[in-house]
Amino acid sequence: MNAEIICVGTELLLGDVVNTNAVHIAKGLAAAGINVYYQSVVGDNPQRLKDSIRLAFKRSDLIVMTGGLGPTYDDLTKETVAEYFGRKMKLHQPSLDHLNEVFNKIYSGQYKKMTENNVKQAYMPRGAVVFDNKNGTAPGLAVTDGNKTAVLMPGPPREMVPMFDNQVLPYLSRDSKKVLVSKNIYIFGMGESAVEDMLHDYMLSMDNPTIAPYAKTGEVYLRVTASANDKEQAEEMLGPVVDKIQNLLGDYIYGIDVGNLETAVVRKLKEKNLTVATAESCTGGWVSKQITGVEGSSEVFGCGVCAYANETKIKVLGVKKDTLAHFGAVSFETASEMAAGIRKISGADIGISVTGIAGPGGGTEQKPVGLVYIGIDSKALTETLELTLSRGYQNERDHIRYTATLRALHSILRAANAF
Amino acid sequence: MNAEIICVGTELLLGDVVNTNAVHIAKGLAAAGINVYYQSVVGDNPQRLKDSIRLAFKRSDLIVMTGGLGPTYDDLTKETVAEYFGRKMKLHQPSLDHLNEVFNKIYSGQYKKMTENNVKQAYMPRGAVVFDNKNGTAPGLAVTDGNKTAVLMPGPPREMVPMFDNQVLPYLSRDSKKVLVSKNIYIFGMGESAVEDMLHDYMLSMDNPTIAPYAKTGEVYLRVTASANDKEQAEEMLGPVVDKIQNLLGDYIYGIDVGNLETAVVRKLKEKNLTVATAESCTGGWVSKQITGVEGSSEVFGCGVCAYANETKIKVLGVKKDTLAHFGAVSFETASEMAAGIRKISGADIGISVTGIAGPGGGTEQKPVGLVYIGIDSKALTETLELTLSRGYQNERDHIRYTATLRALHSILRAANAF
Repeated sequence: MNAEIICVGTELLLGDVVNTNAVHIAKGLAAAGINVYYQSVVGDNPQRLKDSIRLAFKRSDLIVMTGGLGPTYDDLTKETVAEYFGRKMKLHQPSLDHLNEVFNKIYSGQYKKMTENNVKQAYMPRGAVVFDNKNGTAPGLAVTDGNKTAVLMPGPPREMVPMFDNQVLPYLSRDSKKVLVSKNIYIFGMGESAVEDMLHDYMLSMDNPTIAPYAKTGEVYLRVTASANDKEQAEEMLGPVVDKIQNLLGDYIYGIDVGNLETAVVRKLKEKNLTVATAESCTGGWVSKQITGVEGSSEVFGCGVCAYANETKIKVLGVKKDTLAHFGAVSFETASEMAAGIRKISGADIGISVTGIAGPGGGTEQKPVGLVYIGIDSKALTETLELTLSRGYQNERDHIRYTATLRALHSILRAANAF
Repeated sequence: MNAEIICVGTELLLGDVVNTNAVHIAKGLAAAGINVYYQSVVGDNPQRLKDSIRLAFKRSDLIVMTGGLGPTYDDLTKETVAEYFGRKMKLHQPSLDHLNEVFNKIYSGQYKKMTENNVKQAYMPRGAVVFDNKNGTAPGLAVTDGNKTAVLMPGPPREMVPMFDNQVLPYLSRDSKKVLVSKNIYIFGMGESAVEDMLHDYMLSMDNPTIAPYAKTGEVYLRVTASANDKEQAEEMLGPVVDKIQNLLGDYIYGIDVGNLETAVVRKLKEKNLTVATAESCTGGWVSKQITGVEGSSEVFGCGVCAYANETKIKVLGVKKDTLAHFGAVSFETASEMAAGIRKISGADIGISVTGIAGPGGGTEQKPVGLVYIGIDSKALTETLELTLSRGYQNERDHIRYTATLRALHSILRAANAF
């Protein structure tokens, strides 16, 4: 089956939003064995939308569309597709019930009320398969006529992604007797191209399970996907592949199906019955923000200090005035004292500190932008790391702060593992 | 002039790469007053590439293309465009010289040698305007016939972006006498639909300047854009429109061209020569992370405490044990004492605190998930706010924490304004 992806939205045409939906859908369709030959973006314009659908169906049997399912007058995707297929619109009661529920639950007592416009979201072309939207108000849908199918999903990625993964992909694979099961292997400390270089031949040699690398800022994960007759068989096929990758990448892997570094940190600390406390300068609270983003983190984290000024480093964390005077705020020595200080005042098992030069100003020849020290203080592991972080292409301040945050989280994991 | 963007590359179709080129080009063309009606992605396939170019020129006068300018046999963009325009290929000596230089300088002594294939990159369709590539081997080019122009650029963003900004945009604007100038008006405390409702008729009535609303989580901004003969004239046209919007929205506007709430906070504090310190529980350091994300924030911020545990609230911030025992950690009283405490230990002009229930667990009937207190302590304004924050659709914990962070930042702004 050949497919096209059409993303609808003037904000995409104007370049206000990066089209991450197209990437996600393309990857998913490729993994399901569906060829994508074209992707396009078109604005919320009825004529151009109509032309695009007509053209796409000339070339392909499946069109996967995102966007234009909102409540306003310029959201036209559903209506245009219905017109293409010659279908009348019909109220879909479960979608209306869901809309009512959402408005009652989330907006109760606030200024937002459900309007006539919103009701439009519950109307569907006759014969459509409806995908419910647990994360928003616009349901998705699929309309089929002969061998032509259009799938429509809402534009916001947090609505589109779960709908695509949990409902659309299974729907598109419904005639297949196969199930797809994936495992995500999370990697830290190795770039995507290094991972690809290392696994290139192995990845190419694999047909089922498949292995695909994904990159986030500073992190990489590999998704291993098996197609099998049932879940059990898929798991059996995945086992040896995951083992082989674990052997190849060793300590670079910080977790399987764990989602992110901070969740790995909180889980590991709970498992080992340990606590951590943070002392942050250049990251400004980003490390504690990440940790406390994990539900249940209060069991392992109780105290963080954002010691941005030297005075706070001295008064709150107990860093020596002399240390700051001799070595400066961004130094091995200050990082060590910050980590020891926060561990002492908090009583936590692990104290972690970050101090560095995030830029764009403030760098010198000796201490350039990107220089960061991470201090670890604990009974099992006490050390301080000197890092020279990449400045990234754009917004180097954020890039350095975020990379430093990831390194600090990874350091907590290392300290916990040392216990 | 109407334009289309065509990005060529199988890696884009497969979803291996996010198409950031399209965003960059779309933004640039929009700012130059060139309408983009379609974007598309097509693989390195000669027939589909040819079809895409033919189709695009039926609909538009300008095609901006990226990718497929490499040295290998499947890089075909230039040859396909030359064929479309009926132009023969001709050696472009400066490009060959540049290639030789790159290979001598960059790859000298390494395994990479210039091959016959690379020489292909120095061939151009007759009559093409060539854009040199300081960051790679593939030059860009523009070919024009009558009112149809094709612009071709290399695919890697670090080659494409400077070529587009420094050479292609000036080339495309060479005949234009108009300039576009925008002002962004930043709004807090009012949803996008409420803003749209309020300004709907006014926005529709405006042709030049235009007004467009944009939404971020918890925030809205309006972009007002004037097209004029010069910058001065554009500014004159913008003035009354911005004034009118300011009159309509009043205190909901927190800044013009300020970018975000945290930048507005840092600017306002600098302007008033004030400092702030933060005491965070449920936001876990997010407020301090946002403030320290702004360059130069060290002038107005020096100390933050993430008091996640009650013990930290007592020991570090000086919240009374009795207060916590009687009213609980999430209470008006605790928030007030946290704000007063952080102001005291930091010596800052403004102390701000956040304590709340971020969920998904931990809520009760009396204190449900989403209940947040924000304390402000300063000479000019001391008050504590009780908020019931929307739980959002997905990841309510993050949503509540982020919304609370924005409210805290806005509270700092209010406190600073009271001085």
